[in-house]
Amino acid sequence: MSIRIGIMGYGNLGRGIECAVKNNPDMEIVAVFSRRNPDTVKILTEGAKVYSADEILNFKDEIDVLILCGGSATDLPAQTPEYAKYFTVVDSFDTHAKIPEHFAAVDAAAKEGGNVAVISCGWDPGMFSLNRLYSNAILPNGKDYTFWGKGVSQGHSDAIRRIDGVADAKQYTIPVEAALEAVRSGSNPELSVRDKHLRECFVVAEEGADKARIESEIKNMPNYFADYDTTVHFITKEELCRDHAGIPHGGFVIRTGKSGWNNENSHVIEYSLKLDSNPEFTAGVIAACARAAYRMKSEGAKGCKTMFDIPPAYLVAMSGEEMRAHLL
Amino acid sequence: MSIRIGIMGYGNLGRGIECAVKNNPDMEIVAVFSRRNPDTVKILTEGAKVYSADEILNFKDEIDVLILCGGSATDLPAQTPEYAKYFTVVDSFDTHAKIPEHFAAVDAAAKEGGNVAVISCGWDPGMFSLNRLYSNAILPNGKDYTFWGKGVSQGHSDAIRRIDGVADAKQYTIPVEAALEAVRSGSNPELSVRDKHLRECFVVAEEGADKARIESEIKNMPNYFADYDTTVHFITKEELCRDHAGIPHGGFVIRTGKSGWNNENSHVIEYSLKLDSNPEFTAGVIAACARAAYRMKSEGAKGCKTMFDIPPAYLVAMSGEEMRAHLL
Repeated sequence: MSIRIGIMGYGNLGRGIECAVKNNPDMEIVAVFSRRNPDTVKILTEGAKVYSADEILNFKDEIDVLILCGGSATDLPAQTPEYAKYFTVVDSFDTHAKIPEHFAAVDAAAKEGGNVAVISCGWDPGMFSLNRLYSNAILPNGKDYTFWGKGVSQGHSDAIRRIDGVADAKQYTIPVEAALEAVRSGSNPELSVRDKHLRECFVVAEEGADKARIESEIKNMPNYFADYDTTVHFITKEELCRDHAGIPHGGFVIRTGKSGWNNENSHVIEYSLKLDSNPEFTAGVIAACARAAYRMKSEGAKGCKTMFDIPPAYLVAMSGEEMRAHLL
Repeated sequence: MSIRIGIMGYGNLGRGIECAVKNNPDMEIVAVFSRRNPDTVKILTEGAKVYSADEILNFKDEIDVLILCGGSATDLPAQTPEYAKYFTVVDSFDTHAKIPEHFAAVDAAAKEGGNVAVISCGWDPGMFSLNRLYSNAILPNGKDYTFWGKGVSQGHSDAIRRIDGVADAKQYTIPVEAALEAVRSGSNPELSVRDKHLRECFVVAEEGADKARIESEIKNMPNYFADYDTTVHFITKEELCRDHAGIPHGGFVIRTGKSGWNNENSHVIEYSLKLDSNPEFTAGVIAACARAAYRMKSEGAKGCKTMFDIPPAYLVAMSGEEMRAHLL
């Protein structure tokens, strides 16, 4: 019997979950829930139906794991604790600074409902976090570096779009190659924000807009751009659609450290991702976490978990024997 | 109270464990056991003592985790099941093809003794295995590639030393850069043994030995060298000691795969290690696994485990709150 998946929220991530489930034969999508009028939401999966988010409690016995595909700013802080009372849930909450309070709220709700809730699944937080943890565990005398990109930052693209005279925009975060090389050399560099990443912006200006002013507003925007070396390219709407339609991302987690009685030996551990589609890859991680959540719930576990708490074996659709024979 | 560690077998790995424990303040070495005369074994840790391997059962109440530092060919197949009856144990058994039978023997013994035994800890098997597992879980539609090196292969060095006329030798396994690049491109190449790795040999010949014959014997040795492009350099004993004294190693685990409703998006996941000291890095992984074994045993777990079964959080000396705040 397959694991019956429900999807709450149907944007890029929800669509990514449908694609991920297609590649996981032990799972099936049974329903998609949306705040929009269900008749206007067209999904990919044959046999699954779209329902209003208000109807979800009717599905308590039809869904094994509910995947919450809302945003971290306002949706998930409310949704994950709410639905963890009734369902085994998985989310991709990614506001790093607020994870402790999100964890506490979700943990209380999941325990109240006797459910398992896995939060912050994806690649950062998620696979990058796991790599930081494993590297810290095995190389305690060392230093961590995380680089993001090359990839599209939704938050920075949105910030540009809010500038007067901007019709559309896409922003790429790009790791500085020289900084990566310095880290890999084991020299333990102290790197400023500017040393680590570049920001490259592709902007469609409205007709007659003052491009010099737009460029200056972007480059001087506090927090988002002022602390970085930022490049601005003005392009046409057609060029933006043709050359910048994708949502690629990726990055690097590197830990360098020492071993030996007198710290005489150096080591470099590097994990990197190069992703054509950020939401589809994130969805792949979430699908594996949904499998683990289902198994933990079946064993009687309760409360909030992160990928730190999941035995890796729970993520794959293989028996222990198969794993040990083929992956170990 | 710290986790009390015993070491069985004192070679490069045993010494590496001492170094690793020095970087893990929640652990201490209480005793080292050797088959040699204890008076002849000099260890690094002040306060710890060396005992004969025969005395080990006297230490059942003094040791929380016994780390088995013998070889995979003959030591561990006997030692791990034997000691798992009496101790929580960790080993680095690395004969991939024999892991299933080793697991079965250790599992029976550990269950009989009510202990936890973690086998095959290190980097391959170990961290590389984990990366294969995670990547398979999150990108099920893809292909795995593992490359080793650049690093010293003990087995291949030993094979050269057995050739008539060879005084000493060191062999480096080197991944072929073009093969790595082909894999990273996502082109899913089919790679032969020869395509993936080069073998470079540094050989000290005995005086008057026939170097042409030695070189030919190396290059034509079945399994070890015949299927590879192999280079042989004859050097002096002094050069070998000066330039090839270290035990570096490393490698790459890469998985490329597709996502999207029509497999339209590609992804590359890459994990790599660059290690100055293979045994010291392996010891770092083992120390983290010893911490996890201690915790699992404290919770009442029994039987044989691998790194696939260990919740990552059990490997680090941090509380859940600290981990979520600083690593997630």
